[in-house]
Amino acid sequence: MNRPLLQMALDTYDLPSALAPLQKAHHHIDIIEAGTILCLAEGMHAVRILRSLFPDKILLADVRIAEAGSIISKMAYDAGADWVSVVSGAAPSSFEVVLAEAQSRRKDMQIELSDGWTWEMAQRWADMGVQQVIFKRSRDLEAQGKLSWGQQDFEQIQRLSEMGFKVTVTGGVKPADIPLFAGIPVHIFIAGRAIVKADNPEAAAKEFQDTISQTFDTI
Amino acid sequence: MNRPLLQMALDTYDLPSALAPLQKAHHHIDIIEAGTILCLAEGMHAVRILRSLFPDKILLADVRIAEAGSIISKMAYDAGADWVSVVSGAAPSSFEVVLAEAQSRRKDMQIELSDGWTWEMAQRWADMGVQQVIFKRSRDLEAQGKLSWGQQDFEQIQRLSEMGFKVTVTGGVKPADIPLFAGIPVHIFIAGRAIVKADNPEAAAKEFQDTISQTFDTI
Repeated sequence: MNRPLLQMALDTYDLPSALAPLQKAHHHIDIIEAGTILCLAEGMHAVRILRSLFPDKILLADVRIAEAGSIISKMAYDAGADWVSVVSGAAPSSFEVVLAEAQSRRKDMQIELSDGWTWEMAQRWADMGVQQVIFKRSRDLEAQGKLSWGQQDFEQIQRLSEMGFKVTVTGGVKPADIPLFAGIPVHIFIAGRAIVKADNPEAAAKEFQDTISQTFDTI
Repeated sequence: MNRPLLQMALDTYDLPSALAPLQKAHHHIDIIEAGTILCLAEGMHAVRILRSLFPDKILLADVRIAEAGSIISKMAYDAGADWVSVVSGAAPSSFEVVLAEAQSRRKDMQIELSDGWTWEMAQRWADMGVQQVIFKRSRDLEAQGKLSWGQQDFEQIQRLSEMGFKVTVTGGVKPADIPLFAGIPVHIFIAGRAIVKADNPEAAAKEFQDTISQTFDTI
């Protein structure tokens, strides 16, 4: 099994607050996420700056496209994003236009599985050629106090993977959660505040990276 | 019946492209919308600039909140927005936190009725104290070539109004469409490209305004 990648989500209210921890942690992460909050706060300027600072990292603009997919994806790709996000509740035509835009540029898109997604929708996306989905712990379960990841999550990730998707996992992931995913085909783990708000962002990112290696690397 | 207000939606790729037509048209409009595309392109900077230029207009930040409602609404209100938008598919808790934030500041929020909204959801929002919804022509019907507004739209707007909502109407509205709404309780009409891309944005906005007056003013 491939070792999952580590994505650092930057969801700060301004760019400087994102750049300070990123500059410390970047050696230990694979993917930089310009989060929804940062994109709304600073606009595509944030994406352009991140691209200029880290030309070799994968850069995701978490613009959560629901409509106007062609325009928003073009804007993000032009600013330097490799990937953009589309919400699962988007208009059906949005998936197609964003995917076409991505493919024409050899870039990619991710569908964020928000409350209300179904396996039937997922099958349509797979048939359409969508490669990546973002799996979040159910908010309802979180609200019920189910604070850790469970069998139901792992089965869904497994099934998404069997459908052909590369699965990004998000939802307050901490290093201590990573070993729970041993044997589960996770493509990417997202860490946000756990790195951005850490006293030592470099050490926090390294801890994620080391835990991922220990959990997924086999001899 | 009150005369509906006219909202100019600014969905350009940058702020200058929005400001040029706005500066010409602003005498004839009631509400300025910093559109999703503009917010993502320029960040909350766009909202701050619009607020500084037009301190007396109602200003909507169309941030389409799906999550992180508290943070995003605070950010938009702090930048000077009077209203923010929340998508109908947002997490249930999002409506409550954004509404609470709005009420604490004497501002407001609008729920955008995206594909998949139900009357049951609308009743919950009404019970919660939500005042405003944004009604769009069904994309499915549009895709079927049903290009104008029809009886089904008017009945839904009427029913939303009877539930207590002030209803904003959007979806490629042209001046020629306005008379179709005679007698229908519309709170706001949104015009976007029809003004922004007009050769003469002032004349285009005035035409909307005049048509609204002719359709809704009674002696």
